[in-house]
Amino acid sequence: MNKPLSSFDQFRNKIYKIIYKSDTVSGRLFDLILLGVILFSVILIMLETVQGFNQKYHEQLIVFEWIVTVLFTIEYLLRIICINKPFRYIFNFYGIIDLLAILPMYLSRIFPGTNVFVIVRALRLLRLFKILHIPQINSQYLQLINALKASKGKIIVFIYFVLVCTIIIGSLMYLIEGKEGGFTSIPVSIYWTIVTLTTVGYGDISPITPLGQFVASLVMILGYGIIAVPTGIVTAEFAKNTLKNSVHTHKNPCPNCGLIEHPDDSKFCYQCGATLSPK
Amino acid sequence: MNKPLSSFDQFRNKIYKIIYKSDTVSGRLFDLILLGVILFSVILIMLETVQGFNQKYHEQLIVFEWIVTVLFTIEYLLRIICINKPFRYIFNFYGIIDLLAILPMYLSRIFPGTNVFVIVRALRLLRLFKILHIPQINSQYLQLINALKASKGKIIVFIYFVLVCTIIIGSLMYLIEGKEGGFTSIPVSIYWTIVTLTTVGYGDISPITPLGQFVASLVMILGYGIIAVPTGIVTAEFAKNTLKNSVHTHKNPCPNCGLIEHPDDSKFCYQCGATLSPK
Amino acid sequence: MNKPLSSFDQFRNKIYKIIYKSDTVSGRLFDLILLGVILFSVILIMLETVQGFNQKYHEQLIVFEWIVTVLFTIEYLLRIICINKPFRYIFNFYGIIDLLAILPMYLSRIFPGTNVFVIVRALRLLRLFKILHIPQINSQYLQLINALKASKGKIIVFIYFVLVCTIIIGSLMYLIEGKEGGFTSIPVSIYWTIVTLTTVGYGDISPITPLGQFVASLVMILGYGIIAVPTGIVTAEFAKNTLKNSVHTHKNPCPNCGLIEHPDDSKFCYQCGATLSPK
Amino acid sequence: MNKPLSSFDQFRNKIYKIIYKSDTVSGRLFDLILLGVILFSVILIMLETVQGFNQKYHEQLIVFEWIVTVLFTIEYLLRIICINKPFRYIFNFYGIIDLLAILPMYLSRIFPGTNVFVIVRALRLLRLFKILHIPQINSQYLQLINALKASKGKIIVFIYFVLVCTIIIGSLMYLIEGKEGGFTSIPVSIYWTIVTLTTVGYGDISPITPLGQFVASLVMILGYGIIAVPTGIVTAEFAKNTLKNSVHTHKNPCPNCGLIEHPDDSKFCYQCGATLSPK
Repeated sequence: MNKPLSSFDQFRNKIYKIIYKSDTVSGRLFDLILLGVILFSVILIMLETVQGFNQKYHEQLIVFEWIVTVLFTIEYLLRIICINKPFRYIFNFYGIIDLLAILPMYLSRIFPGTNVFVIVRALRLLRLFKILHIPQINSQYLQLINALKASKGKIIVFIYFVLVCTIIIGSLMYLIEGKEGGFTSIPVSIYWTIVTLTTVGYGDISPITPLGQFVASLVMILGYGIIAVPTGIVTAEFAKNTLKNSVHTHKNPCPNCGLIEHPDDSKFCYQCGATLSPK
Repeated sequence: MNKPLSSFDQFRNKIYKIIYKSDTVSGRLFDLILLGVILFSVILIMLETVQGFNQKYHEQLIVFEWIVTVLFTIEYLLRIICINKPFRYIFNFYGIIDLLAILPMYLSRIFPGTNVFVIVRALRLLRLFKILHIPQINSQYLQLINALKASKGKIIVFIYFVLVCTIIIGSLMYLIEGKEGGFTSIPVSIYWTIVTLTTVGYGDISPITPLGQFVASLVMILGYGIIAVPTGIVTAEFAKNTLKNSVHTHKNPCPNCGLIEHPDDSKFCYQCGATLSPK
Repeated sequence: MNKPLSSFDQFRNKIYKIIYKSDTVSGRLFDLILLGVILFSVILIMLETVQGFNQKYHEQLIVFEWIVTVLFTIEYLLRIICINKPFRYIFNFYGIIDLLAILPMYLSRIFPGTNVFVIVRALRLLRLFKILHIPQINSQYLQLINALKASKGKIIVFIYFVLVCTIIIGSLMYLIEGKEGGFTSIPVSIYWTIVTLTTVGYGDISPITPLGQFVASLVMILGYGIIAVPTGIVTAEFAKNTLKNSVHTHKNPCPNCGLIEHPDDSKFCYQCGATLSPK
Repeated sequence: MNKPLSSFDQFRNKIYKIIYKSDTVSGRLFDLILLGVILFSVILIMLETVQGFNQKYHEQLIVFEWIVTVLFTIEYLLRIICINKPFRYIFNFYGIIDLLAILPMYLSRIFPGTNVFVIVRALRLLRLFKILHIPQINSQYLQLINALKASKGKIIVFIYFVLVCTIIIGSLMYLIEGKEGGFTSIPVSIYWTIVTLTTVGYGDISPITPLGQFVASLVMILGYGIIAVPTGIVTAEFAKNTLKNSVHTHKNPCPNCGLIEHPDDSKFCYQCGATLSPK
C-alpha cells in the first residue's frame, strides 16, 4: 500500500526516532548527549557571570558559547525537518524554549552590545525538565505529581491561611517594633514574618524590643508547628498510594505448609492451596 | 398564604441573597468583587507605611482610601438593612470587624491627627478569613481544622513540654555564656533558645564559648528531632481521614458470639446478627 | 477494725488527699495554685536577670522571692508530714527538686554574697513537669512517650549516623575553608556543620570559598532531606497507634437499611441486623 | 577428619572470634574497647586543630597519637594474621580505611613536615560506621536503609526537580538583585537559593530590593512547602513497614473465581483454592 519511502523520508524517519523517541540505543544516546550539552551550556552561562573567571577566559567562553549555539541550532532544524507537523512543535512550550535558547546569540551579533538577549539564554535551563519525560523517570515523577495534585485543595487553603496570618503578624510587628529594629514598613515587616515563619531566619531584620521578641517567639513556635500541616497532607496522600497495594492479614497457620499470615477471609493457603481451618 | 411582598421587601430579599449567599451568579460575583476591594484596601494600608511611596503619592492614597471606605460603608449598611435580625450581625465577630474597617477613617476626620485609629483599619484583614466560608473552600478547610482539632490534646502537651525545656535551656545558657555573647538576661536567653530550637537561627545572638556552642549543638539536634513529633501527630490524623475505607471501632463484646471489636454506633453484631448492649 | 483516727491523723489524711491526689475539688485547686506559684517564682528569677528591671525593683523582687520561698517551705513540710513514708518522698526525684527550690534562699542568708546558690533556684522549673502526672494530661503524654519509645532504636542509629557525618563534614570543611571563613578548628567546623545540617543557620560562621560554598550547599540539601527520616519514623508509630482502632470495610449495601460500608466479613448489617447478601 | 589444630592455629581461631565476631563476651568487649580507642583518636585529631590547646599540650598530643597508632597497628596485623583470606580484608573498604588510619603517622616520620598525611588520619572516623554491623544495631539500620532504598527513585526525581528550580531561581535573583545585595554571580545566587530554600538562612547574602524580597518570600514559602515531599515519601515507606499485618498484592485474576488481587508469590487463589497462572 505505502509508496516506497524516498531516501530523504527514510533519513527523516531515522532522525525522528533518534530525536523524539528514547526506546532505541541511539535515541538514548542522543538524549544523554543533549543533556550533557545543555548542562555544559548552563555552566557556561554561570561562569560568564563570575567576574574574575570571565575576565580571564572571556574569549574561550565566547567560542564555547558559539559551539553550543551551533549545536542547538542544528538540533532545532533537525527537529523541524523530521517531524510531520512542524508548527505543532514550533509553537509548543518546549519548541519556544528551544528557539529562545539559540536566538539571543544571533541577535547579539546583529545588535551588538545588547546584553539583555544574552540573559534569555538562561531559559535553556527549562530544557532540563524534558528529562522528566523519559519513561523510567516519568512514572516516579507522575506518582509525585499525583500525590501533590490530590492534596492541592487543602494546600491552597493552607497557604491562603498562612498568607493572611503573615499580613496580620507583619502589621502587628510594624506597630510594635517601629523603624529602629528594621521594620521600616508593613511590606518589610511581612517579609520578616515570612522569613521567620518559614524558619529561614536571615537575621538582617530582627526584633529588638522585649515585646517584639516575645511576639517573634510566638511566630516561630507557630511556624515550627504549622509545618506539620502541609507535611501531614502530602504524607497522607503518599501513604494512601503506597498502602493501596496491600491487603490485611490474620494469623492462621496452614496445616499443610505452615505459612502463618494469610489475607483476611482466606479459605485456602495461597502458597500450597491446602484448605485452611476456618477462623 | 404569604402576603405579596412589597417592592422594598423584594429588594431586601434580592440583596440578602447576593450578599449572604454565594450559590447564585450575582452572589459569587459579589464575593469576588468584595475580596478584590478588601485586598486593594489592604495593599493601600501597606503602601501608606512605605516612606518613599507615601510621600510621593500621599494624596492619591487618601482618595483611594476614602473610596474604599465609602464602598465598605455602603456594604455595611446594606448588610444591616437586608438581614432580618440586624443586631445578630452587628454584634457578631465579622460584624464588629466590618465596623472597625470603616470607623477609623471617619474618626480621623472628627479627631484630626490621630493616627492610632488609622492603624485599626488593618483589622480589615480579618475579613479575608470570610472566604473560608465559601462552600467549596469550606469543606477543605473543615478537613484541615478537624485533623488539627483531633490532635489538639497531644499538641498542647507537646508545646508545654517544649516551653518548659526552653526555659530550662535558656537559664542554662545564661549561666554558661554570660553577657558577652549577647545572653544579657534569662528572657533574652529564652528568646535565643526558641530561635534555635525552631531552627530559625537569626544569628543576632549566638554562643561564643566552646561549652556554649556545645550546648547549642545539642539544642539544635533536639529541635531538629522534635519537629518529628507535631508532624507525626498531625500526619497520623490526616492519614486516618485519607484512608477512607475503614471505620472506627470500639470494644463491646457480642453476647452471642463474643466478637469484641464493633464499628462505632453498631447496634447488631456484624458476625452473628445478635443485638448488642448499648454503649 | 481500724482504731478511730486521732484528729491529727484526720488532718494528715485530709492534707494528703489535697496535696498528693487531684481527684477532689480541693486537690485540683491546690494543683492549680501550686502551678501558679511556681510560674510566678520562675518569672521572678527571670526578671532578676534583666538588668534595668532588677536595679529599679530589686527590693520588691527580694520580698516576693521570700514570700515564694516561705510558701514552698510550708508545702515541703506539709508533704513530709502527711505522707506515710517521708523518706521515700525526700529522696525521690521531685523531693530533691522541691528541696533545691527552697534551700538557696536560706543558704544565701547564711553565706551572704554567694550568688551561685541563687541560680539553683531555677531548678524549680523542673517542678513544672509534675503537671504531666495529672490524669487527663497523662494519657496524652503517655501516647506521645510510647510512640517515641517505640521508635527509640531507629532514632539512636539515625543520630549516630548523623553525628559521624557531622564530624566527617566538619573535618572536610576545616580543610577546605581554613581560618579566614571562621573555621578555626575542627570542633568549630563541627559546630558549623550542626548549625547548617539542622537548618538553623546563624551566619556567624559561613563559607566564603567557592568550594566551601559548594560543599555547604550539599550539606544543606542533605540536612533538608534527612529530616524526613526521624519524621518518618515517629509518624509511622503515631499512625500505627491512630489506625489501630479501625477495621477495614467493603461496600455491600444492606438490603434493609441501605447502609453501604460494612466491615470485612460482615454477615449482618451492624445498624439494623438484617442479613447481608454474601460478597 | 580435621587434623588437630596447632597451638598457633588455635590462637588464630581465638583471635578471629574476638576480632571478627561479636557474639562472645570477649568479642563484645573488644568491639567496645576498639570503639573507645577510635573515639579517643578522633578527639585527639580535633584537639590538635584547636590552636590554644595544641600549643599548650602539643607533646602530650603527639605521645597519645603514637599510642593510638601503635594500638591500631597491632589490631591491623592481628586482623591480617587471623583471617584465612587476608587479601580479601586488605583490599576491602574497611581494610583500606584501617591502613589509612595508621599509615600517616609513619609517613610523617619518614617525610617530616608533611602535614597532608596527618589530615588523612581523619579517615579513621569512617571506622565508626563499623558499629552498624553489630547485629542488634544492624537490624534497625537495615530497616532505615530499606525504607530509604524503596523511596530512592522518587527522591532522586525530587532532588533533580529542586536543583533545576534552584538554578532558575538563582539566575532570576542575579538579574533582579545585582551586585549590591551580594548576588555577585549566578553560582553565588544559586548558593543563596539553596541556603534559602532549605530554610538554613545564614544572612550573609540577603535581598535588599523590594522585588528581590518578594521573590525571596516566594522561594521561602516554596521551600517550606516542598519539605513535605521527601518527608511524605519516606514516611509512607516507614508506615508500610510499621503496619506489619499486611501483605503486598499484585493483580492476577483467578481463572476459577475471578478474584483479582492476590498476595505476592501466591500460587493458589486464597478464596477458591484454584491454581493461579504464574506471574
